[in-house]
Amino acid sequence: MNAYFGRRYMLSASHRLHSDALSAEENRSAYGKCNNPHGHGHNYAVEVLVGGPVDAETGMVVDLAALDEVVRTRVTARFDHTNLNLDPLFANRVPTTENLCREVFGLLKGAMPAGKVEYVRVEETENNFFEFRGE
Amino acid sequence: MNAYFGRRYMLSASHRLHSDALSAEENRSAYGKCNNPHGHGHNYAVEVLVGGPVDAETGMVVDLAALDEVVRTRVTARFDHTNLNLDPLFANRVPTTENLCREVFGLLKGAMPAGKVEYVRVEETENNFFEFRGE
Amino acid sequence: MNAYFGRRYMLSASHRLHSDALSAEENRSAYGKCNNPHGHGHNYAVEVLVGGPVDAETGMVVDLAALDEVVRTRVTARFDHTNLNLDPLFANRVPTTENLCREVFGLLKGAMPAGKVEYVRVEETENNFFEFRGE
Amino acid sequence: MNAYFGRRYMLSASHRLHSDALSAEENRSAYGKCNNPHGHGHNYAVEVLVGGPVDAETGMVVDLAALDEVVRTRVTARFDHTNLNLDPLFANRVPTTENLCREVFGLLKGAMPAGKVEYVRVEETENNFFEFRGE
Amino acid sequence: MNAYFGRRYMLSASHRLHSDALSAEENRSAYGKCNNPHGHGHNYAVEVLVGGPVDAETGMVVDLAALDEVVRTRVTARFDHTNLNLDPLFANRVPTTENLCREVFGLLKGAMPAGKVEYVRVEETENNFFEFRGE
Amino acid sequence: MNAYFGRRYMLSASHRLHSDALSAEENRSAYGKCNNPHGHGHNYAVEVLVGGPVDAETGMVVDLAALDEVVRTRVTARFDHTNLNLDPLFANRVPTTENLCREVFGLLKGAMPAGKVEYVRVEETENNFFEFRGE
Repeated sequence: MNAYFGRRYMLSASHRLHSDALSAEENRSAYGKCNNPHGHGHNYAVEVLVGGPVDAETGMVVDLAALDEVVRTRVTARFDHTNLNLDPLFANRVPTTENLCREVFGLLKGAMPAGKVEYVRVEETENNFFEFRGE
Repeated sequence: MNAYFGRRYMLSASHRLHSDALSAEENRSAYGKCNNPHGHGHNYAVEVLVGGPVDAETGMVVDLAALDEVVRTRVTARFDHTNLNLDPLFANRVPTTENLCREVFGLLKGAMPAGKVEYVRVEETENNFFEFRGE
Repeated sequence: MNAYFGRRYMLSASHRLHSDALSAEENRSAYGKCNNPHGHGHNYAVEVLVGGPVDAETGMVVDLAALDEVVRTRVTARFDHTNLNLDPLFANRVPTTENLCREVFGLLKGAMPAGKVEYVRVEETENNFFEFRGE
Repeated sequence: MNAYFGRRYMLSASHRLHSDALSAEENRSAYGKCNNPHGHGHNYAVEVLVGGPVDAETGMVVDLAALDEVVRTRVTARFDHTNLNLDPLFANRVPTTENLCREVFGLLKGAMPAGKVEYVRVEETENNFFEFRGE
Repeated sequence: MNAYFGRRYMLSASHRLHSDALSAEENRSAYGKCNNPHGHGHNYAVEVLVGGPVDAETGMVVDLAALDEVVRTRVTARFDHTNLNLDPLFANRVPTTENLCREVFGLLKGAMPAGKVEYVRVEETENNFFEFRGE
Repeated sequence: MNAYFGRRYMLSASHRLHSDALSAEENRSAYGKCNNPHGHGHNYAVEVLVGGPVDAETGMVVDLAALDEVVRTRVTARFDHTNLNLDPLFANRVPTTENLCREVFGLLKGAMPAGKVEYVRVEETENNFFEFRGE
C-alpha cells in the first residue's frame, strides 16, 4: 500500500507572457496585462507529490533530505530569482505556469530517490494554481 | 497530455439549513445551530478545477479572462451577497454546501471556454470543504 | 514588563447593511451590495489581544480556559450562527464590522480574568479587517 | 453521484524518529534532526475526506456532529497533547507522519456514520503533508 | 474614539536590487540573489490601515469603494504587472520593499476619502513583510 | 523616518507546562492538557520585527542575510527540534510561550546588525500567538 508525501518549495521569478506565434494584438488578447513589456513577477509555490510504499524500516516514503537536494539542484537553483523567459527550456515555449509545471515535472520525474512523482502543482498567486500529472 | 488549472473565487452569502421533509426536532438534530431561525452566513471560497490539453500556441489550458467571465455571470453574480435560501435552485433543496457544490458544478459544466470542469470545491469555513466531481 | 496574548475565535453570521437615517439611494451608495435585501454572510475571525504582566508562577498573562469561557459566553454564544441585525445591540446601529468590533470590545473590556483587552480585531474576509482599541 | 466532505482537525503532539532496526548512525542519517534525543513537536492538521451520496432529505454526505464525535473519540482524544512514541500503535513502528496517517486511516475506516474515508491527510508543517488512501 | 480598517491589495511585479552607489561586489554582498541580472518577481500583498472616527450614520471609518478607487488609481494601476525598476519613483532609489512601502505611503497619505493612513505594510513573501508609518 | 522589517522563522519543539511552585492539582488546573506527562509539541512561528532608518545607499533597514544568521545561531539552532524543558533558560521557568517570547527577545535584543528589535511574536497554533516588546 502506498502513501504520499507532499512538499512545498518557494521560488521568486519574473516572466512575460508573449508568444512569437501570435500578433501583438493576439498576444494582448491572450495574456492581458501578463503581456506587459518588461514582465512582472510571482512568488511561485511548487508542490511536489511523491507516492510509493512506506519503507518498513524507516517508516518513510522518501528521504526528505534526499528529495530536497534533488529539487534544489534541479529546480530551485535553476529558476529561483531568475527571469523565466531567459531559461533555455522557455526558448521556444511561453513561460506560462502550465508550461512551468510541465517542465518541473520533466526535470524531477526520473530523479526521485524513492517513489514516483504523482504531480507537480504550482501556485502562481493565492487564487491560481496549475497542476501536471504526466498523463 | 493534460494540465489542470485551479482558480478560486470568493462569495459571501447567508443561508439557513432547514428541510421541509423533516420535523422541527429532526431539523434541529440534523443541522444543529445551522438550523437557527434567521440564518447565518459564510465567506465561501469556490475553487474550480479545469483540465485539458495545453494549447500549443498560448501555453494555456483555458483563457483566464474568459473563465472568469463565465464564473462571474453564472455563479458569482448569482450567489454573492445573497441569501441562498431564496434562489430558485434551492426552492426544493436545502442549501447545504454539498448542494451548493452540485449546483455550481451544473451551472459551469457545459460552459467552459476550453477544457472541462474536473471538480467544484467549496470551502465553507477554514476547517470544512465540499467537493463535487459529477460522478 | 508586559506580554501580550492574542487569540482567535471564529463565528459565522449574516447581516445586512442598511441605515434608517439614510434614503434607499444613500443606502445603496454607502453600502453597495452589502445593502442587498435579505442580507448575506461572513465567517468572522475575532482576534482578542490581552496584555499584562506575566504571572511569575504560571508563566502566563491570562488563563487560556478562563479567557475562552468569557469569550464564549459573552461573544460567541451571542453572535455565532445568528443574524446580527436582530441583536439588540444593533437595534439602532448598523451592524458594520466597525460597530461589531466596538460592541465586542465593550462586551469583553471589563470581563478579563487577568490583564486588559488591548484591541479587538475582526477579519470580515481574507482581505478586510477592522480593529477597535477603545481610544 | 457522490460528493466529498473534507474536515480538518488539529492536534499537538511530540515525537522522536528513531528505529530500533537501525544503528545510531543510520538513524541520524535517515531522520536528521528528527532523531534528536528528547524529541520535538508539531501542530498536526489532520484532514479527513469522506465520500458518498448526498442524502436526499438532509442534503448532506455525513452528519457533521456524528463525524466529529468519531474523530474526537478515536483520534483526537488519543493523540492530542501526547508523545506519539508512547502510544501502543507505535510500540513497534516509528511514528513518522506516514505511519501516523496510516494509523489514523485504520482507526477511522470502519467507523464512519455514513460514506467512506477517501483519504487521511496530515500536514506536519506548513510545507509538508502526508496522505494515505488505503490502496 | 477611532476604529481602524485594514484592507489588502495584491500586485505582481518584478524588480532587481542594484544600487549605482555600490560596486558590483558590494551589490552582490548587500542583495545576494536579489541582485541577479534580469531581475525576479513577487506577489506583493499591500495592506493599508486607515484610522478614524466611525461615522455615526454609516457606521464606517471610510467608504470601501472610495478607498478601493484611490488605491487602484494611485497604486495598483501603477505597479501591478510591471517592472518596478522602470518606475520614475525608483529612478534614483533601489526598489527594495522598504522603499516600495514608503512610496506607496506617500502616494496614499493625502488622498484618503476619510480617516488617515496609519501604515502601509507590504508582504513580499510568506515570511517577509515591511511597514512604513510615516514617522 | 523609520521602516520596519518583519521576518518569520519556524521551529518545531516539544514542551510540557508544569510549575514546581504549584501542586499537581494546581498544575492541572492552570495548564489543562498542556500539563500532560511526556509533553506534546508545536510548530512555532517566530516573527521578529526590526525597526530603524532605511539606509540611504542600500534602501534596507537591516541586511537580511545578517539578520538570518543572528537568528539562526541564537534562536533556531538552540530551540529547533528540541524539548524546551531541557534548555537551561527554562531550568527555573515554565516554558510557556509567553516565556519563550521573552527569552527569544532577550537573545536577540542586543545582537541586531542594524536597527532594533521592536517585538518578538510567537505563534503557537493557528489561533494563538504571544508577543513581547521589552516594555
